[in-house]
Amino acid sequence: MKNLLVLDIDGTVTESDRSIRVETMEALRKIKKERPDVITVLVSGNVLPVMYGIRGIIGVGETLFAENGGIMLHDGIIQKFFEPEITRRAFEKINRETGAIEFITNRWRETSVSFILDGNHDFSSYEREFDVRIEDSGFAKHIMNRGQNKGFAVRKIMEIYGVGKENVYACGDGENDITMFKEAGFTGCPANSNPRLKEISGFVSEKYYGEGLLDILHHFSFI
Amino acid sequence: MKNLLVLDIDGTVTESDRSIRVETMEALRKIKKERPDVITVLVSGNVLPVMYGIRGIIGVGETLFAENGGIMLHDGIIQKFFEPEITRRAFEKINRETGAIEFITNRWRETSVSFILDGNHDFSSYEREFDVRIEDSGFAKHIMNRGQNKGFAVRKIMEIYGVGKENVYACGDGENDITMFKEAGFTGCPANSNPRLKEISGFVSEKYYGEGLLDILHHFSFI
Repeated sequence: MKNLLVLDIDGTVTESDRSIRVETMEALRKIKKERPDVITVLVSGNVLPVMYGIRGIIGVGETLFAENGGIMLHDGIIQKFFEPEITRRAFEKINRETGAIEFITNRWRETSVSFILDGNHDFSSYEREFDVRIEDSGFAKHIMNRGQNKGFAVRKIMEIYGVGKENVYACGDGENDITMFKEAGFTGCPANSNPRLKEISGFVSEKYYGEGLLDILHHFSFI
Repeated sequence: MKNLLVLDIDGTVTESDRSIRVETMEALRKIKKERPDVITVLVSGNVLPVMYGIRGIIGVGETLFAENGGIMLHDGIIQKFFEPEITRRAFEKINRETGAIEFITNRWRETSVSFILDGNHDFSSYEREFDVRIEDSGFAKHIMNRGQNKGFAVRKIMEIYGVGKENVYACGDGENDITMFKEAGFTGCPANSNPRLKEISGFVSEKYYGEGLLDILHHFSFI
């Protein structure tokens, strides 16, 4: 039976500046080399081509799920599950009313919108009006379609690999990882994680970012 | 005075499988940390978002020039220098007549087309008919507009940073790095390089890929 190691990238695999620690990269490569039972997949709020570049450089990531469940690269084929129109319209209104700024990766976004806006804001009226969901990855805010989230991504991936939740190990740090954790049998998050994610995480590391991930991978007995 | 370290990515910074050696990544980070006189820029035939992901993970790359001089990210601003229409039309004819296959990154290409085609082919009739240039990066074949090449990219970058060729150190491995080498005061290539590039390279390492790059960086006294 295969085990799926489902990893968020920014803030979980990477440090706060989006770079990777050498030790984290080595650990992920070691799992790929020495644990044929473990399939590592990457599930991110980021866009697919950025994940494609990261996967290439690290050399790890069998399947890539981008835009919080919006678009997937598996076995050389790109599959889109949602459309961007409603999320664009929601962003236009948020932009007019709050001055939120488009994130650079929107140029390559096909199913969602991400934006930057400082301070605490209640987006629930926009969520209701446009029937969208607005989540914070810790790096940007993301507007997704109804049903588009990392939980959706994990269910698709479990289907593809034919495994149940008892074989799914998820690691993440953001609010947008909550739906992913709900689908996984085993969960772990680093010390820098969103407080609500920590509450539902099976294991919470005392270490931050990539060091936290190493701690989680030890806890899962993957390294 | 600043020195520009201009790096091709695939096959120069990376191994043949597009992953990076730990030692190569550490050397590039060390230069960033310890050599404030050296500005590292990345110039690739690859697409901008893939380079953006790679730059994030490695943590190195002040300016990114993608699609062999077609599009640049500098200081948070994306600037496009060419359009894709003519290269698309050239590809459509090549595809009909040879069965060439689009490369996955075409989805994110804004100024050129890349394709895969095995065997040796003479593309000069297509180059003449469409007034395009077709080059091989060793990873894919690229159709570019007239004047679109890595030499163009290096000239733009020299302008931005206000340096002359005596302060430009270029490293590459492909046919598409030839125009870049012609603009640089100092050039180096790994053992896996295109034979024509080797002929014009100031330094040719006996080592391959990332180990070759380490050798070149030593030769340049950057590490």
